[in-house]
Amino acid sequence: MVKTLRDVGELEAIRLLTRGASGREDVVVGPGDDAAVLRCDPGEDLVATTDGMVEGRHFLPVWLTPAERGARLAAVNLSDLAAMAARPRWALLAIGVRPQHEMKSLLEFQGGLAAALAAEGAVVVGGNLAAVRGDEWWSLTLLGSVARGRAWTRAGARPGDLLAVTGWPGRAAAGLALSRLESPEAFRAASDEAWKPLLEAWLRPRARVGFALALAPAGAVTAAIDVSDGFAGDLARLCEASGVGCDVHARSLPVDPPLERATGALGLSFTTLRFGPSDDYELLLAIDPGRRDACERAARESGTPLVFAGRFTDRRGELSLVTADGATRPLEPRGFDHFAGER
Amino acid sequence: MVKTLRDVGELEAIRLLTRGASGREDVVVGPGDDAAVLRCDPGEDLVATTDGMVEGRHFLPVWLTPAERGARLAAVNLSDLAAMAARPRWALLAIGVRPQHEMKSLLEFQGGLAAALAAEGAVVVGGNLAAVRGDEWWSLTLLGSVARGRAWTRAGARPGDLLAVTGWPGRAAAGLALSRLESPEAFRAASDEAWKPLLEAWLRPRARVGFALALAPAGAVTAAIDVSDGFAGDLARLCEASGVGCDVHARSLPVDPPLERATGALGLSFTTLRFGPSDDYELLLAIDPGRRDACERAARESGTPLVFAGRFTDRRGELSLVTADGATRPLEPRGFDHFAGER
Repeated sequence: MVKTLRDVGELEAIRLLTRGASGREDVVVGPGDDAAVLRCDPGEDLVATTDGMVEGRHFLPVWLTPAERGARLAAVNLSDLAAMAARPRWALLAIGVRPQHEMKSLLEFQGGLAAALAAEGAVVVGGNLAAVRGDEWWSLTLLGSVARGRAWTRAGARPGDLLAVTGWPGRAAAGLALSRLESPEAFRAASDEAWKPLLEAWLRPRARVGFALALAPAGAVTAAIDVSDGFAGDLARLCEASGVGCDVHARSLPVDPPLERATGALGLSFTTLRFGPSDDYELLLAIDPGRRDACERAARESGTPLVFAGRFTDRRGELSLVTADGATRPLEPRGFDHFAGER
Repeated sequence: MVKTLRDVGELEAIRLLTRGASGREDVVVGPGDDAAVLRCDPGEDLVATTDGMVEGRHFLPVWLTPAERGARLAAVNLSDLAAMAARPRWALLAIGVRPQHEMKSLLEFQGGLAAALAAEGAVVVGGNLAAVRGDEWWSLTLLGSVARGRAWTRAGARPGDLLAVTGWPGRAAAGLALSRLESPEAFRAASDEAWKPLLEAWLRPRARVGFALALAPAGAVTAAIDVSDGFAGDLARLCEASGVGCDVHARSLPVDPPLERATGALGLSFTTLRFGPSDDYELLLAIDPGRRDACERAARESGTPLVFAGRFTDRRGELSLVTADGATRPLEPRGFDHFAGER
């Protein structure tokens, strides 16, 4: 017999979803009481974020396995903490699932979530489970800590600071678009090595927590944001918060053969894929030019691909793309609005 | 023209839903960045809980106005912190709403939530908004603080400790049941003064935060839980966590004329209403007998109705009801399971 949530019951399901918090020194009271009691270190600030996903909107069950869904839920929240230079510590999970949801799937989800959190030092300390009739939803609140007063914010970039970019922005958008060309099963089956990095970027994003924590003590970062909506859109937000503009040097960004190849299959330009709406969970950082070395060292030590690909300017709100031939043109900030579709 | 979420867009809606956090010393970075940065006091532990509600399951739109829904979402989370003796401070809001949701309603919800949180010293510092196709959902994570190592838990009650009970448990169940007898509109219109306290208990529960904070310094409480599922069910959980039993003295509990009257209209016994499934958000406390005075003083000072209505025993897991005539019978723990219905 297939066991469902209805067979197991709410309390037992919550117990299973929130296991693994015992034995940590910073968890004074774990799951199972009215609330969790957590121990902050003196001299640290608390950093808190919440992000989630909704069936049919952020994912379709056939695309993501339950474990991938859990890992993704962790990653989107971990990335917010990475963008603040915070050390991930505690998570609270709230989900709405149908009573006929299979326990096997729920436990696979829990496994994916817990493993992805544990890889960065965090653990689920509390949860809530609601029964829904229609689409399921999964929401996480992630708490972390940072040395008092040392959190990175979006505000603080100064004209002359360098733009540092991790990884390969745009890959997630290409992976998503490719998977929509055919049925997800057919796409998975047919995926050759050429598409794999794109699909991976979209299915299994990995937040840049290790790099952020390696870089934080250097004091090199004047502003930071993670790419959850798209390179240009998120860079525009950082510039707006900091009151600066930015020249992005296309030549300094990494070549990306898989992304190049995808342009043909998708009928989209490389620029659209790289800078348009895409949730890559890479970091965009404003770096004090005098501390560029520290930034490169942190990237090397944490095994993080990183380039310096631009410079912030005093042309407030202006994003420009300097192309390979030296020409300059406006870089349009475009993000994704879940209520309006692509803007 | 009626303005909807789709007209306003995701970012502006999140901005409106999370306004009001500026100017607080314990909010270093408020809404609008990748995460919120919050300042804990040295010598304090962090207390975290998450609870929410789903349309059609926890509420029907015709029963609760948007502002009442917001206040209720605050109350159910505030009550968890009250049960840990924690001071409410910061909240993160995650909601799933239809794109055609009217902004007016969303802002009324925000107003009700913010006012209920502010009344206890808390503020929304971050949020996430997802578009849904079907039922809407509302989830809150609430963070508070408590003197290091001084959080109340469910474990700690000892044989001989007194059972203290706030307010009038069972009223919320009666209010809910009464409202189902006829259409919600007819019920509201017809509600006379006799039913009003019952309806209020269900529509507008108020967490016992003030009482908990007044009582906390006395060191009188050995265990605590809030009544979110029902008197007997929640008392059973406290007893299980503490490894004790409890004799409940029916005569010591407050008489409750509105609840008495409801038994006729509902065809349910007083005992069923008082001890059965009901989310009253009252507190059940185990009190050191030597500090009973301190408990009474905190109740008086905070204007909280309180009775001593039983004694914990060494008969592990055994709940007994001592009736007015001195007879003793088992008190059945019954709670509510959202996946299975009433157990």
